[in-house]
Amino acid sequence: MNAFKEINSPLRTIMTPGPVEVDPRVLRAMSTPILGQFDPAFTQMMNETMEMLRQVFQTKNHWAFPIDGTSRAGIEAVLCSVLKPGDRVLIPIYGRFGYLLTEIAERNGAEIHIMECEWGEVFNQQEIINEMKKVKPKVLAVVHGETSTGCMQPLDEIGPACRELDVLCIVDAVATIGGTNVKVDEWELDAVIGGTQKCLSVPSGMAPITYNDRVEQVIAVRKKVEKGVATEQDRSEVQHPISSNYFDISQLQDYWGPRRLNHHTEATSMLYALREGVRIVLQEGLKERFERHRLHEKALVKGIKAMGLGIFNDVPWKLPMVTCINIPAGIDGESVRTMLLQQFGIEIASSFGPLHGKIWRIGTMGYSCRKENILFVLAALEAVLIRHGASIQMGEGLQAALNVYESANLAAV
Amino acid sequence: MNAFKEINSPLRTIMTPGPVEVDPRVLRAMSTPILGQFDPAFTQMMNETMEMLRQVFQTKNHWAFPIDGTSRAGIEAVLCSVLKPGDRVLIPIYGRFGYLLTEIAERNGAEIHIMECEWGEVFNQQEIINEMKKVKPKVLAVVHGETSTGCMQPLDEIGPACRELDVLCIVDAVATIGGTNVKVDEWELDAVIGGTQKCLSVPSGMAPITYNDRVEQVIAVRKKVEKGVATEQDRSEVQHPISSNYFDISQLQDYWGPRRLNHHTEATSMLYALREGVRIVLQEGLKERFERHRLHEKALVKGIKAMGLGIFNDVPWKLPMVTCINIPAGIDGESVRTMLLQQFGIEIASSFGPLHGKIWRIGTMGYSCRKENILFVLAALEAVLIRHGASIQMGEGLQAALNVYESANLAAV
Repeated sequence: MNAFKEINSPLRTIMTPGPVEVDPRVLRAMSTPILGQFDPAFTQMMNETMEMLRQVFQTKNHWAFPIDGTSRAGIEAVLCSVLKPGDRVLIPIYGRFGYLLTEIAERNGAEIHIMECEWGEVFNQQEIINEMKKVKPKVLAVVHGETSTGCMQPLDEIGPACRELDVLCIVDAVATIGGTNVKVDEWELDAVIGGTQKCLSVPSGMAPITYNDRVEQVIAVRKKVEKGVATEQDRSEVQHPISSNYFDISQLQDYWGPRRLNHHTEATSMLYALREGVRIVLQEGLKERFERHRLHEKALVKGIKAMGLGIFNDVPWKLPMVTCINIPAGIDGESVRTMLLQQFGIEIASSFGPLHGKIWRIGTMGYSCRKENILFVLAALEAVLIRHGASIQMGEGLQAALNVYESANLAAV
Repeated sequence: MNAFKEINSPLRTIMTPGPVEVDPRVLRAMSTPILGQFDPAFTQMMNETMEMLRQVFQTKNHWAFPIDGTSRAGIEAVLCSVLKPGDRVLIPIYGRFGYLLTEIAERNGAEIHIMECEWGEVFNQQEIINEMKKVKPKVLAVVHGETSTGCMQPLDEIGPACRELDVLCIVDAVATIGGTNVKVDEWELDAVIGGTQKCLSVPSGMAPITYNDRVEQVIAVRKKVEKGVATEQDRSEVQHPISSNYFDISQLQDYWGPRRLNHHTEATSMLYALREGVRIVLQEGLKERFERHRLHEKALVKGIKAMGLGIFNDVPWKLPMVTCINIPAGIDGESVRTMLLQQFGIEIASSFGPLHGKIWRIGTMGYSCRKENILFVLAALEAVLIRHGASIQMGEGLQAALNVYESANLAAV
């Protein structure tokens, strides 16, 4: 009846913009025998994870916990808990994941206003602020790091402007959290969603979020506790209750708060993974971790350029952990990717929409972001491109990358 | 900055109705290094998991895959993909999780009709069929195994009646899948949601579902592919699109099907866990596994009765993997649970709503459902009850359970 063998998975070098290689310590943490969800030993781990998430988000917000689903589950939980049908949302779009925000908000019945710029560009912050003054939205929803284009939208002026204009600023920081600064409090961001499977190097399946009192107040008036666990203190009649039970943040607060009211059964092993993942981030240090991401990005970019290839996102607003390479004319991008995987066990990414077939994307995120991976991907890419008849500066890529690492070592002495 | 230590979790004997102890082979599978979501080695594992889920669900349905969230995420995905605002749903309620179905359906704007019976009872199938004839719902949503009351609703006549009356039969089999028969095809159930953290002995965080063509057709007309990955073959204007992006089963089909259209990033390590979990179920054999659950239930029930305690769900419709014990008069149920945890490291459950404080619930699910656990919980419960001044038939519980095991061994010779 059952011919399936145990898992025997090949070991890959994963250089995509996610999911990336998981830190071995996180993998090990997941094999810990589980605890019941209300076991005091487990609720203590929930609290510890909240505390560490606050530090990773650089916030004093009380609420910082994971949604039990992949990154877009976190985005949907925040948007559907905040947005009532008819609420106005402004969404600046500079890549695929901006469209995802419209998609989620629209399905919740929000009135969507978008701004678009060419893929590869970002917005001048003042443009967005001016548009907010015109549109007067309840919510501004914006992607911090667009992995589809390798660009990063500055937010430091947008957050304060939202505060001034009484707009809630909701930020998708799935790609950036743990890899570069996401200064939730300093930038005055109201709600931020992070991802696990990118710079945190935890498997996909959880989405850490944080939000402040401004967001909590909006959600509180929509709170409706489900029948079966509600008590007399819980109102039964609510205008515009949140349209999802699973993503109802007002109920999740009662689960993550001292009331410990049963909602879902917390995903135990994923919580272990997230706890260990953020612990490792803080152990390395945020500053040191962000510098490490910058260093390996620099080595990769120098190496790629030295090979004679062009960088699509060679711009001041480059996302540090995603490097997009222009596919040389006449080269079949998918054939190169396939050969990288089949001969070298290396995975890099293609892209979406207008950029599909035009760029490769190499991620340098979390545990994948380390010297031997950078050197291996440069060596392999050179060999595969030569094999595909591309004109390449042979041997130069690795030399350029090694130069970067040697200078960094000298600087550190 | 970071004072948190690595995970150092106590090892518990988990005898609740979920989450239960995870099979060590599943824990080990989770520590496998991950693969990219479109790596052929990974998509093959996705396909293998689908094939094994079909066998566990005893169905020939094409669609059988997990939702990346906890069990209620699976329920919400099915209900919100099927139900448009105004659609009529009939929900027979015989415990807490029936209310959860109303809760989820109601938030989706469905017109809810309920039937209720006392907690501890189930419905005569004909009653439900008669009510369907009166209400003429689009959907009947019903819980197969109610862990809150330890009861199991027979479904073998309801499924065929739904087919005849053109009602979609959606079943919450979270508690029963992998522990007792859930005959999806034979009972003519249209969509069924299973849970991982109960009889499959996989951690919480995924919800396997299956559904047939009747459900697929209803969902297909609501299909809307998100902008950013849609191509010309995808309609952009759809009446009543599914209100959730994350739970949109029509898009999940394109992710789990040959088109492999990017939606979320599959929760890699949880998929490894589920694949290993269902592999172990099939390796044991469904029939053998269900018999094992019955054997240990019998030993537990005999032991509890021999101690002189009463069984709340000592009824023909008892859920085989949940045994509810009447808390003796004058005994503080929570104090007993606390002492079991603190002195013996054993977790058993209390209950909800009208049964809170009246019963304890002991789960015998999956990997937790084994002889040494049954014997340990009986021994510990006796000791703790004596310590609480209860009048107990000393020593009888273990003898009765051992008798059951010895007879089973004789029968097997």
